[in-house]
Amino acid sequence: MAQIHWKPDKQSLVPMHKQIFDFIKDKIALGDWSIGNRLPTQMEMANAFDVNRSTVLEAYEALKAEGLIESKKSAGTIIVNNTWSVLASKAPPNWEKYIESGYQKPNLNVIKIINELNLDSKMIRLGAGELAPEMSPVQYMKSIYDHLLMDVNYMGYEEEKGLLQLRVEVCKYLKPMGIDVNPNKVLIVSGVLQALHLISMGILRRGATLLTEQATYIQSLTLFESHGINFTGVAMDGEGLIVADLLRKASVKKPELLYTIPSFQNPTGVLMSVKRRKAILSLCEKERLPIIEDDTYRELWLDEEPPAPIKAGDKNETVLYMGSISKSLSAGMRVGWIVGSERVINRLADIKMQTDYGSSSISQWMCYEFLAKGYYQSFIKSLRHELKIKRDFTLKILDQYFSDIATWQKPAGGFYIWLTLNKNIQMYRLFESCYRQGVVINPGNIYDVSSNKNIRISFSYASLQDLEQGLMILARMIKLNLSNR
Amino acid sequence: MAQIHWKPDKQSLVPMHKQIFDFIKDKIALGDWSIGNRLPTQMEMANAFDVNRSTVLEAYEALKAEGLIESKKSAGTIIVNNTWSVLASKAPPNWEKYIESGYQKPNLNVIKIINELNLDSKMIRLGAGELAPEMSPVQYMKSIYDHLLMDVNYMGYEEEKGLLQLRVEVCKYLKPMGIDVNPNKVLIVSGVLQALHLISMGILRRGATLLTEQATYIQSLTLFESHGINFTGVAMDGEGLIVADLLRKASVKKPELLYTIPSFQNPTGVLMSVKRRKAILSLCEKERLPIIEDDTYRELWLDEEPPAPIKAGDKNETVLYMGSISKSLSAGMRVGWIVGSERVINRLADIKMQTDYGSSSISQWMCYEFLAKGYYQSFIKSLRHELKIKRDFTLKILDQYFSDIATWQKPAGGFYIWLTLNKNIQMYRLFESCYRQGVVINPGNIYDVSSNKNIRISFSYASLQDLEQGLMILARMIKLNLSNR
Repeated sequence: MAQIHWKPDKQSLVPMHKQIFDFIKDKIALGDWSIGNRLPTQMEMANAFDVNRSTVLEAYEALKAEGLIESKKSAGTIIVNNTWSVLASKAPPNWEKYIESGYQKPNLNVIKIINELNLDSKMIRLGAGELAPEMSPVQYMKSIYDHLLMDVNYMGYEEEKGLLQLRVEVCKYLKPMGIDVNPNKVLIVSGVLQALHLISMGILRRGATLLTEQATYIQSLTLFESHGINFTGVAMDGEGLIVADLLRKASVKKPELLYTIPSFQNPTGVLMSVKRRKAILSLCEKERLPIIEDDTYRELWLDEEPPAPIKAGDKNETVLYMGSISKSLSAGMRVGWIVGSERVINRLADIKMQTDYGSSSISQWMCYEFLAKGYYQSFIKSLRHELKIKRDFTLKILDQYFSDIATWQKPAGGFYIWLTLNKNIQMYRLFESCYRQGVVINPGNIYDVSSNKNIRISFSYASLQDLEQGLMILARMIKLNLSNR
Repeated sequence: MAQIHWKPDKQSLVPMHKQIFDFIKDKIALGDWSIGNRLPTQMEMANAFDVNRSTVLEAYEALKAEGLIESKKSAGTIIVNNTWSVLASKAPPNWEKYIESGYQKPNLNVIKIINELNLDSKMIRLGAGELAPEMSPVQYMKSIYDHLLMDVNYMGYEEEKGLLQLRVEVCKYLKPMGIDVNPNKVLIVSGVLQALHLISMGILRRGATLLTEQATYIQSLTLFESHGINFTGVAMDGEGLIVADLLRKASVKKPELLYTIPSFQNPTGVLMSVKRRKAILSLCEKERLPIIEDDTYRELWLDEEPPAPIKAGDKNETVLYMGSISKSLSAGMRVGWIVGSERVINRLADIKMQTDYGSSSISQWMCYEFLAKGYYQSFIKSLRHELKIKRDFTLKILDQYFSDIATWQKPAGGFYIWLTLNKNIQMYRLFESCYRQGVVINPGNIYDVSSNKNIRISFSYASLQDLEQGLMILARMIKLNLSNR
C-alpha cells in the first residue's frame, strides 16, 4: 500500500471518521487497494491522518459493517471485498491511472496552493502578478461595446494568425518602438504563456536548453520540463543579463534559445540598459542564437520610458518578440502577440489552430478597439499613476519594516520588488506560516530553484492598506522563522 | 543536398528566374546548403522546378555574378561563398531546423490548403463546418452588451475551472438533458478541440489507442498522432456504432478510450439510437473503458429532439462529456465545456492553466449572458429553422445531380451530409479540380483514411445559391474525374 498523502479536512462539516471511511471505500472501489491487502494499523492510520485513534476506529467499524474489511488476528485488518454490488455499483474507470499516464507535469505544488488560497477573498495577496480588480478598465467599456456593435457583424472563426484588423493595429502600435513589421509576421495568442506553450511544441527539440535570467518567470512553468527542455540561468546585475556570463553559458551549454524579459523583469524588476540590449543582440546574432524577448511589462514604466526593445535592432530575425495586454489592460481578455520570422509565425499559427482554433474573436475585437480608438494609451497613463503610488508606498513600508532583514532595489516599472533576505530561510515554512496569518506570498524559489532568500513582492494587486498589513505580517514571520531555525 | 520540395509560383508577378535565384540564395544564407556543395545540374533543377532550362540558367548566372557559385569543369556548379557580407548580412538563425525539431506535427496538408482557400471570399465553401457569417447572433448583441455593462466590473484572470457563474449556468443547462452535476465537475474550455488537446496531454500515455467511429472528426487532427496516440475505427450503421464491432475492437485493441459523437456525427451525420447508447454505455462500464462523448451538434436537431446524452445514464463517471457553442451560437467566442469525474476535471483544469491561463473572461461572460437570459435557446430555435431550409434544399439538389453517382442519408440534424460515391475516386485530384473551379470540398479521407469514395458536404455555410452552384460543379468534376481514370 503506497504512502497516503491525503488528510481529512478538519474545517469540513463532514465528521472526520466519515471522511476517512469515504476515502478508504474509494480506494477499494477504484481498485487502488485490492482484496487481500492489509490496511495500516489504526495507530499508523491515526498518525498518517493526524487524528485520534478513536476516529480511525470508528471508520474501520463502519467499513467492517459494510463487509469490506475484516480484522484477523496476527494478519491485521484485511480488505476482503470489492465487488461492485457491495460498493453500490460504484466502479468507475481507473481515472488515477489515466491521470498519471499523461505526459504533462502538474503545476508546481506551491503554485497550486497559491491558486487555491487566492479563491479566498480574505487573503492578502502580496505575490499576485496581476492588476487589482478595481483597476479594470471598466470606464471604457460603454464606448468599447458601442464600437463593437458597429464593427462586428460576424462571430465565427478568425484567420489562422488572428483577426487581421487587430494584427494591423499591433503593427501600428509597435512601429514607434522601432519594430517595423507587416501583419503576416504577427500571431495573436491568448497571452505570453500560450506563446511559450506553442514554442515548446513547435520549435524546440526534446532535451533542448534555454538560457534565461537566473531568476525568471519561465522557471515557474512545468510546461517545458514536460517536454524534456532544460533551463540554464545567466547571472544578472542592475543592468540585466551579464554579457560575459551569457557568452560563457552560450558556448558551454549549446543552448537553443535565450529567453529574456528586458523590461521590468519578472521577478526581479530589473530594467536592462540600452548598452546591454545591444551587446546581447550582437552576441546572439554572432552565435545565431535566437532570442525570445518577453516584453509584457514594457508599458508599465513608472519613471521614464524604457529603451527600445531588443527586437527594434534586429535585422536578421534573430528575435521572437512577445507582447501582451494581460498586465497593462486586462488579463481576462487573454490577448497577446508574437512577432518574428514569418516561417516561425506560420509554424506557431498552425499549432495554435490545432490546439484551440484561434483566440476568442470578441477578445480580439475588444483589443482592437482599445488600440485603434486610443483607449489603451489613455488607460495606461492613469494606470502608471496608480501603480507609481503603490510602488512608492510599498518602498516606504519596506524601509520601515525590512531594512534590518532584507535588501531590494527600487524598480523603475512593472509590478515587482525582489526582496533578498539577509539570511537563508526555509522558504516553504515561511510561505505556510504567512498564509496561516492570511498573507499569500510568492516564494523566490519558484523563479530560481537555487534561491533560499528571495521573495517576489507585487505591489499591483493588494490595496495600500493590505500592502501595509501584509508586509508587516511578512516581516514578523521572517523574523520568527529566522529565530526558530 | 536533400530533395527539393519547393517550386516557383507560376502565378506570381515575380519572374521565375528571380524566384529561383532568391530560393537558392536563401538556402545558402541559411546554411542549409554549404560551401563546397555541388548544385544540381541545370537540367535536374529545371525538372525539379518544372521550368525551362533557360530559366534556371538565368538564375545561375545571377548567382555567379554575386560570387556565390562557380561552374567548374567536371565538378559541376559549386557553392563557393556564403559570407554574410556577400549575402548583405542576411544570416538569421536556422529557423527551419527549429521548425523541424518541434514534436507537434503540422496540420494535414489538405486542411492547410482548405484554410488558405477559405481566405478567398469568392470560393464556394461546400465543406465548411461552421455557421454562415450572416447566421451570427448579432441581433442579441445590444442586449448582451447592456447586461455585460451591468454584470462585469472585473477583467482579470478567472478561476482555474472557468467563470463560476458560467459553470453554474452550464449545470442548469445540462440538467434537463439528464446530466446532473455540480460546477466542480465542469471545466470551461476554448472549444472541443482544446478539450481534446488537454486530454492528449493530460490523461493519455504515449502509444495509447482510441476507439472512434470509422469516419470521424478526430481523425482529421494531427494532435494525437504527435503524441504517439493511435486510432482504431469501429464500424457504424444508421443507428451509430455497431456494438458487436465495438466489443471486438475493445477486447483485441486494449483501447484507452472510446471517442464518439452520438448526435449528428461529424462527418456522417448519423444519430445514435437510444438502444445503442444504452448498450454502449453498459459495455464500456463493464470493460471500465472511459467514453469521451462529444455532443457539439446536439442542439442542431432539425426533425425531433435527439435521445438523452450517454452521460445522462452514467452512474460511474465512465463518461467525459463535451459540449460547445461553436456550432450552435458562435465559433468565434471559443467557449465549450468538459464535464466528468472531478479528479479528471481537476487534472485538465491544471493543464489548461499551464497552457493558456484560462479562456477569455469576456467570452465566458457573454456565454453566461446568452445562457442565463434565455437568448441561446431563442437563437437556436431560429437557427434550426434556417438550417432545416438549407438541409432540405441541399437534399433536393443532391437528388437532382447526384442520384446516378452517389448515395447518402438524410441527416436528422447537424451540418453534414456524407456522400458515398458509387465508385472509388482519386480524392486529391477531385479536390484540386474542384477548387480550380472555385469550389472547396472536404474530402472524406480526412476523416477516414481508408475511404476513397466519401465527401463531407456541409449545408451550414454556403448560401442556397452557392450550394446549388457548388454542388453542380462538384457533380460535374466527379463525373469528369471518374471518366478520366
